[in-house]
Amino acid sequence: MTRNAAFAMFEADEASRALGIELLDAERGRAVATMRVTPAMVNGHDIAHGGYVFLLADTTFACACNSHGPVTVAAGAEISFVRTAKLDDQLVATAEERTRYGRSGIYDVTVHREDPEGRTVIAEFRGRSRIIDRDGMNT
Amino acid sequence: MTRNAAFAMFEADEASRALGIELLDAERGRAVATMRVTPAMVNGHDIAHGGYVFLLADTTFACACNSHGPVTVAAGAEISFVRTAKLDDQLVATAEERTRYGRSGIYDVTVHREDPEGRTVIAEFRGRSRIIDRDGMNT
Amino acid sequence: MTRNAAFAMFEADEASRALGIELLDAERGRAVATMRVTPAMVNGHDIAHGGYVFLLADTTFACACNSHGPVTVAAGAEISFVRTAKLDDQLVATAEERTRYGRSGIYDVTVHREDPEGRTVIAEFRGRSRIIDRDGMNT
Amino acid sequence: MTRNAAFAMFEADEASRALGIELLDAERGRAVATMRVTPAMVNGHDIAHGGYVFLLADTTFACACNSHGPVTVAAGAEISFVRTAKLDDQLVATAEERTRYGRSGIYDVTVHREDPEGRTVIAEFRGRSRIIDRDGMNT
Repeated sequence: MTRNAAFAMFEADEASRALGIELLDAERGRAVATMRVTPAMVNGHDIAHGGYVFLLADTTFACACNSHGPVTVAAGAEISFVRTAKLDDQLVATAEERTRYGRSGIYDVTVHREDPEGRTVIAEFRGRSRIIDRDGMNT
Repeated sequence: MTRNAAFAMFEADEASRALGIELLDAERGRAVATMRVTPAMVNGHDIAHGGYVFLLADTTFACACNSHGPVTVAAGAEISFVRTAKLDDQLVATAEERTRYGRSGIYDVTVHREDPEGRTVIAEFRGRSRIIDRDGMNT
Repeated sequence: MTRNAAFAMFEADEASRALGIELLDAERGRAVATMRVTPAMVNGHDIAHGGYVFLLADTTFACACNSHGPVTVAAGAEISFVRTAKLDDQLVATAEERTRYGRSGIYDVTVHREDPEGRTVIAEFRGRSRIIDRDGMNT
Repeated sequence: MTRNAAFAMFEADEASRALGIELLDAERGRAVATMRVTPAMVNGHDIAHGGYVFLLADTTFACACNSHGPVTVAAGAEISFVRTAKLDDQLVATAEERTRYGRSGIYDVTVHREDPEGRTVIAEFRGRSRIIDRDGMNT
């Protein structure tokens, strides 16, 4: 059921789906999504624009915080770019709820790439969420 | 001349240009860029994905910090989503250097929309930059 | 009048005053405060603990966001430590409102030291404020 | 041995010890410290100044990132104030390394209070560390 709230939100998020982002899992404050780095996401040196790495993390964060049911939006986020992602990298973002209080929540998202020698961290993201009113206001 | 370093970098940033981002100005730690919210950037409710707002801010930040000459990368950033952007909004991002120290720098970027009644702030972004070595390492 | 709201709040902030922080100015979303680095704030190498630099910035931020009248609290903050402060440094923090929206606000605080050759930036701080309800809840 | 590097650093941190902060554990990128909220840390309403909560988190972060051996400093940090701490609260901060890359590291610190009904989160902190050169420069 909470799984459905996040998946329903993801279905409506045409921007994320148009980028090929797939939502692999979302329930109880947790979500996992994946995205392949396409030619449209890189610069002339085949390095992914950091904005697309953020976008994957932000989508995964949105799925995690909406997995509880009430409509929740991103109030803000902080990202550290740990390593560059390259063309054709299959990135995986894992969002986990850190804490919730009142209408607010904090979620940590790690974006990594699976390499033969193990996971390579690409970025660390922390998102701040707010449950919004029925009238759509983040008061 | 510093103007050229930022514009040359922007020329190589095919990902930003593919989104229709235009660099209007870049010199001495300052840059202005604009982007129109297209159907590919919105969800089913015609609201722009926050990731694209971040992407515009991040590109503008990159142009500002590279306007000095040495190759500089984004080490991280913080964004607060102030208001939602909508389909067809013409967003404008203005990046200004706040301080530089050693190889590091801090840049503030405001993303706004021009409305009949004046500027409407969409997001406030603060980026952290690092000058990289000739071998491309952010040591 | 708005000046009084911030000064009244500062009067009640015994923790800040016990550290010798002085509020020099506070009105219309702006505040300036100063603090001298005392022996109690440094480690064995006469370098100030970053927490005290944060504390000065946080106090100045609180005065700026309460200068408008409604009771406002710090929801969070981000700080970059630019240079170390030393024993006996007279630090000055200047807080400026960047934007306000709904019950939220964003304030930038620069902590600097006056040196013979000019201002030396010690830290850059960005605070997020929330106006609270009459019952003291940050809903 | 790594335990000693963090404890040695804490021994030199007279500012933290003067506040009654105790380092309970520090090894392999992890640290736990505790601090009691004293009358000097509160305002007229017996609510702890957020700066002292930050200070406890920052000290614990410093112990965690120095537990590996090389001298490491705080480059910056982000804090969300979740709930207010009160006079006489015994706060506990737990720092955990999230990732390390090059000379940089990211550490998450949760500050909580033990209540009869369980742990109450007071603040969530994320610190960014940098290993410094032998000449003390954070290049």
